[in-house]
Amino acid sequence: MKATVVVRLKTEVLDPQGDAVSRALGKLGFTGVKGVRVGKIVEIELEHEADKTALAEKLRTMADELLANPVIEDYEVIV
Amino acid sequence: MKATVVVRLKTEVLDPQGDAVSRALGKLGFTGVKGVRVGKIVEIELEHEADKTALAEKLRTMADELLANPVIEDYEVIV
Repeated sequence: MKATVVVRLKTEVLDPQGDAVSRALGKLGFTGVKGVRVGKIVEIELEHEADKTALAEKLRTMADELLANPVIEDYEVIV
Repeated sequence: MKATVVVRLKTEVLDPQGDAVSRALGKLGFTGVKGVRVGKIVEIELEHEADKTALAEKLRTMADELLANPVIEDYEVIV
């Protein structure tokens, strides 16, 4: 089965990559872009079917220990 | 309004970052991880409410021109 962790910079943290994308879109002629934020999507393929609640808990532990930097990032677990 | 473009490496393209995450999870004691793929999630805040079909088309153009590398990446537009 497959599960996903989306890692985003916290809203109060500046996102230079997102700002660069936003400016580049403007230069390419795309109007109406107010802002862009770029995050990571980590897709994990797991061997066994597991109870969704237990799996979500496991993924939150993975995110806390490895996938996200809790100082500047938030994460969302999708199972 | 907000729209999202998810950019993933094509399945036939090796993902060294995902492999590194997969190995690190194993070293941290997480069992049952078959594979990990890491992609980008680009969240775009737009000034005006727009017709969803037109917006999706605009985002596909953005992805083709800037957000994704069509040689090695696929993208998914979510409006």
